[in-house]
Amino acid sequence: METQSENACFGGVQGVYTHRSDSCDCDMTFGLFLPEEAKDGPVPVLWYLSGLTCTHENAMTKAGAQGWAAEQGIALVFPDTSPRGDDVADDDAYDLGKGAGFYVNATQDPWTPHYRMWDYLAEELPSLITGNFAVDADRQAITGHSMGGHGALTLAMGLPGRFRSVSAFAPISNPVASDWGRKQLTAYLGADESAWAAHDSSLLMREKGFDGPVLVDTGTSDQFIDLLRPEALAEAAAARRQQAMLRMQPGYDHSYFFISTFMEDHVAFHAEALYAG
Amino acid sequence: METQSENACFGGVQGVYTHRSDSCDCDMTFGLFLPEEAKDGPVPVLWYLSGLTCTHENAMTKAGAQGWAAEQGIALVFPDTSPRGDDVADDDAYDLGKGAGFYVNATQDPWTPHYRMWDYLAEELPSLITGNFAVDADRQAITGHSMGGHGALTLAMGLPGRFRSVSAFAPISNPVASDWGRKQLTAYLGADESAWAAHDSSLLMREKGFDGPVLVDTGTSDQFIDLLRPEALAEAAAARRQQAMLRMQPGYDHSYFFISTFMEDHVAFHAEALYAG
Repeated sequence: METQSENACFGGVQGVYTHRSDSCDCDMTFGLFLPEEAKDGPVPVLWYLSGLTCTHENAMTKAGAQGWAAEQGIALVFPDTSPRGDDVADDDAYDLGKGAGFYVNATQDPWTPHYRMWDYLAEELPSLITGNFAVDADRQAITGHSMGGHGALTLAMGLPGRFRSVSAFAPISNPVASDWGRKQLTAYLGADESAWAAHDSSLLMREKGFDGPVLVDTGTSDQFIDLLRPEALAEAAAARRQQAMLRMQPGYDHSYFFISTFMEDHVAFHAEALYAG
Repeated sequence: METQSENACFGGVQGVYTHRSDSCDCDMTFGLFLPEEAKDGPVPVLWYLSGLTCTHENAMTKAGAQGWAAEQGIALVFPDTSPRGDDVADDDAYDLGKGAGFYVNATQDPWTPHYRMWDYLAEELPSLITGNFAVDADRQAITGHSMGGHGALTLAMGLPGRFRSVSAFAPISNPVASDWGRKQLTAYLGADESAWAAHDSSLLMREKGFDGPVLVDTGTSDQFIDLLRPEALAEAAAARRQQAMLRMQPGYDHSYFFISTFMEDHVAFHAEALYAG
């Protein structure tokens, strides 16, 4: 693992590290914020999965999460959104290929060799981080934005017991019924829609739910709201009687100005779960 | 004036606007955050001047200032750092020409026609903003980073009575004695160093001081600290008996991770002055 940078930040350290990924068969880069408390032993961790076109860097510099994480003594991980490198298949569209891994293991060519973001985030990166940094594997929570909100919700419900709490900012909530989903799931997983169900948070919510609290914020002025389909997740969560707080925030859009506005709430929400019991 | 974007942000609005500048004889773009309170009438304002290579956008997306400004009911202005456009003279170096206006009125060719950032910030932009938005001309404060810290300190001392408080993050504090200064002041103002004195905060501090509180943070691990010369400003402030808090922050560097860490302190510092009396 190679250290790209380490900057003092809110009493802790914001680092950027590159490592060889077996899952993705390429070099991968991630951001990790460690609060001051990590000097004394393992701290709880909040994963932040980013949206389409993003790298590890966007949220690390624009979401304003570190200050709240420092206040709560929580680490933050900012993974990349897809495999990277010249050998990795790509597409001209912004919403397929690099920067658009959709947090699945691809089963279709040309994506199969590298697009294994589910395994990367479910197994490889957690092992790497808990093995090399003062991060507590038993106290994990997850959040994300847009495609990353989709990733956070599907990983949380797909890995029962892994995360104590899950939240999302403007998540792609029902990709099987959206142009942000049908195209990508077809490309990565094939035309058989039965393979898609494990990657749709509204379907997962209806089938399995989440054993812990759920918080989702979406702006009423989100320019992509028809693609996000928050109504599908809301209906599923209510039908399931899932412990959840789904908020529609008046006037907010899809930008980091929206994310940073509600980051304090999300970090506090996860802290409550991470420090409970 | 043309609206480029307006995003809901911490209960207020983060806008970006472009206008024709008479001072700079080109189109200029600035960011303006208005807190919710601006709906009810003029609010105090904190100016944020950015550093080398920056536009209006860097601090607006990375400094994490809007949340604290919203809490205090204060507007934020994020001006650009130089004139812009194809007609505007430039240099291949990152630290001269576009993105490096140094907040002076150039008197030397080829810079004279457009590089009038002092007039732009001292007169034109304040008039435009207080004339078009709910911003109170009688309650202004100023801060900035690096070259923008230099701009904040020199404008504050050069315009007595304009600003109630001044702060800076890692300011270029003594440009007449630094490679971040001598080159640019020679280019913009000519070789006669007597013309430079009005643009050196350590010299201004010694000569005039500031009628109000001063806060300056610099990281002990700032990679540019030898160019910033915080010791010159510290010596001048102490010699003058200036009301000031000059802090060396252990382990912090020159990045936005440093700025965002201490932004809460700076906004609170200015709020105290802006709401006093």
